[in-house]
Amino acid sequence: VVNLSRMNKIRDLDPVAAIVTAEAGVILQKLHDVAAEAGFLFPMSMASEGSAEVGGAISTNAGGTAVLRYGNTRHLVLGLEAVLPDGNVISSLRKLVKDNTGYNLSQYLIGAEGTLGIVTAATLRLYPLLRQKLVLVAAIPDAKAALDLLADFRRAGAEYLSAFEIMSREALKLVTKHMPGTRFPGRDDAPWYLLIELGASSPLTPLRELAEEVAGDALARGKMLDAVVAESETQAKQFWHLRESIPDSLRAQGKGVHFDIALPLAGLAAFLDEVGATIAALKAGVTLMPFGHIGDGNLHYNMYAPKEIGAEAFAALKKQLQDIVFGEIERRHGSISAEHGIGVERKALLAATKSPAELAMMRAIKRALDPDNIMNPGKVFD
Amino acid sequence: VVNLSRMNKIRDLDPVAAIVTAEAGVILQKLHDVAAEAGFLFPMSMASEGSAEVGGAISTNAGGTAVLRYGNTRHLVLGLEAVLPDGNVISSLRKLVKDNTGYNLSQYLIGAEGTLGIVTAATLRLYPLLRQKLVLVAAIPDAKAALDLLADFRRAGAEYLSAFEIMSREALKLVTKHMPGTRFPGRDDAPWYLLIELGASSPLTPLRELAEEVAGDALARGKMLDAVVAESETQAKQFWHLRESIPDSLRAQGKGVHFDIALPLAGLAAFLDEVGATIAALKAGVTLMPFGHIGDGNLHYNMYAPKEIGAEAFAALKKQLQDIVFGEIERRHGSISAEHGIGVERKALLAATKSPAELAMMRAIKRALDPDNIMNPGKVFD
Repeated sequence: VVNLSRMNKIRDLDPVAAIVTAEAGVILQKLHDVAAEAGFLFPMSMASEGSAEVGGAISTNAGGTAVLRYGNTRHLVLGLEAVLPDGNVISSLRKLVKDNTGYNLSQYLIGAEGTLGIVTAATLRLYPLLRQKLVLVAAIPDAKAALDLLADFRRAGAEYLSAFEIMSREALKLVTKHMPGTRFPGRDDAPWYLLIELGASSPLTPLRELAEEVAGDALARGKMLDAVVAESETQAKQFWHLRESIPDSLRAQGKGVHFDIALPLAGLAAFLDEVGATIAALKAGVTLMPFGHIGDGNLHYNMYAPKEIGAEAFAALKKQLQDIVFGEIERRHGSISAEHGIGVERKALLAATKSPAELAMMRAIKRALDPDNIMNPGKVFD
Repeated sequence: VVNLSRMNKIRDLDPVAAIVTAEAGVILQKLHDVAAEAGFLFPMSMASEGSAEVGGAISTNAGGTAVLRYGNTRHLVLGLEAVLPDGNVISSLRKLVKDNTGYNLSQYLIGAEGTLGIVTAATLRLYPLLRQKLVLVAAIPDAKAALDLLADFRRAGAEYLSAFEIMSREALKLVTKHMPGTRFPGRDDAPWYLLIELGASSPLTPLRELAEEVAGDALARGKMLDAVVAESETQAKQFWHLRESIPDSLRAQGKGVHFDIALPLAGLAAFLDEVGATIAALKAGVTLMPFGHIGDGNLHYNMYAPKEIGAEAFAALKKQLQDIVFGEIERRHGSISAEHGIGVERKALLAATKSPAELAMMRAIKRALDPDNIMNPGKVFD
């Protein structure tokens, strides 16, 4: 294991270009803080930002809750410094937004999970701080309504949409059960809830008026059952706390089976309805509690079995659930790993989801750049 | 030469996901039209969009005037279909926004100038149509003011900034001389002009108020000498016509020497001032007329010699100018090709601008994927 946590300097923050140069060991939260002090937003946002480091985020092409607005890590990286398998160091830390000179080697390393080289530093984009935010939780009648509302909010003001997250009632029920002081915002009987955040860099933008227009229309047409707008920053944080407490609540309740999947948006509601019905029909005591970045077509399609289930029975059940879910994802042209990568656990699945030509191309690149297989051996490929 | 112009179908436009699937031969203007009919914006925007094709845009990672807002081609491509050197076809045309399963092969092919495979189709992002636009031309006292104003507009409303282009007085003088019916918007005695476009998907956004606030402050502080807001779509088109007529006006006037360069924003004004002075000091009859995407740090740093100059003298002068400009770009950590790629002409420069380790990595990738060098041989590399 190579640990870069002590390589944690922020080398430069250029306010003219709105670019920060950070070493691999810098914690994301630190980047948020340093950027904010200089009047900027570093947009990479995820529950683990207090411990996740720049190098890890880049090597896994990390996602999170702000991908909808700012893109994933791949879109935030302008250049990299990296150590190659042969010991050479390459650097594209020139603070350039555009540079079409030869192959973009940074893009080769982003998301390669450390198998092609070790990222040691990066130039990353910053954005102006948002001077207005609006967070709302909407109760909706079905998964299809989530997609309708996504389109409505985009049409009404695409540039303001900072987050568009879905939470099942079951997920929120567990949170309110296990997390002290939490409760449903508004009614608690809808099958699905959306957590929507809008933001604007101008105080002149009528965010509230815009949100009320979309929500008013959606309520009138039955696409929304209820909408609660956070009236303070504290309340906005409470809404986000609900969303971010889902994984811990699941752990408190049962034995989890987790999936990080993506689907084409047009097929996402059908997936939730139909695969949910298939799993229910097993009558295996599985409780589904999907949530996630539905605005990106990315769900943490999680579920749990009762805590009491024996290890062997659980392993068999898990295998059965994986076969169902991965089979359906393949059939519906989705992704078996939207933001969590391949690592060790999903290596066998990679072969199932990619064509022989794609796998051969990946292996050819790996062999060419790391012929002795010294970079994170055993990850992504065997 | 492989010509894909007849492979020109738009295979699918998915309004839920806001993704279009287009073949390599589709002309960009066609994509604009088809997207607009469905209520969407296809944001790739450049003077050549009436003839440029999807495959070419992808293989060159094309830029244009909307990179500031929507990113370059690399950011608009979600997946590709491509023929590899061994004849195999790979496809990532699943309509997914997030997919972290193995190396992102699409990103490897984008900007590779056809040297790693032939792109035959792509899934591309669409955005909601903008329902408001504001175009203004500002006269400014110096290049530094352009960067100050960029920061001001970003702080005031980053999400509205669709284009931020600079034009030198010399460039506009040539346009008004050679293009019938054109004239300076407002005063004609400033050294530099900015063409700024703001856009919003919501009619509720007070774009004009926001622009007037920034411009009013800039005029009061002397960062802006004059600002003319287009009062109609016709006038907005006239402003853009000025910008887009610069290359033809140069051709009408003299023998051109062209550069497509990028610089870190913080060093861009000094480059213009200092390298401009160096070239003037040659007293070689060269007229500088830089213009371009200054919001991205990208300039078309163009100049011309009088038409009467002999072929031999012009060749020597061109060489001298290239040595100066490329030397200064290297010294100031810029890019010798911001959006135009390497092709044949800039092959020798690639070696000068990249480290041996970077060149070795590029060559290793090329050798691994195209061992017989049958894909666009002689481009990018020798």
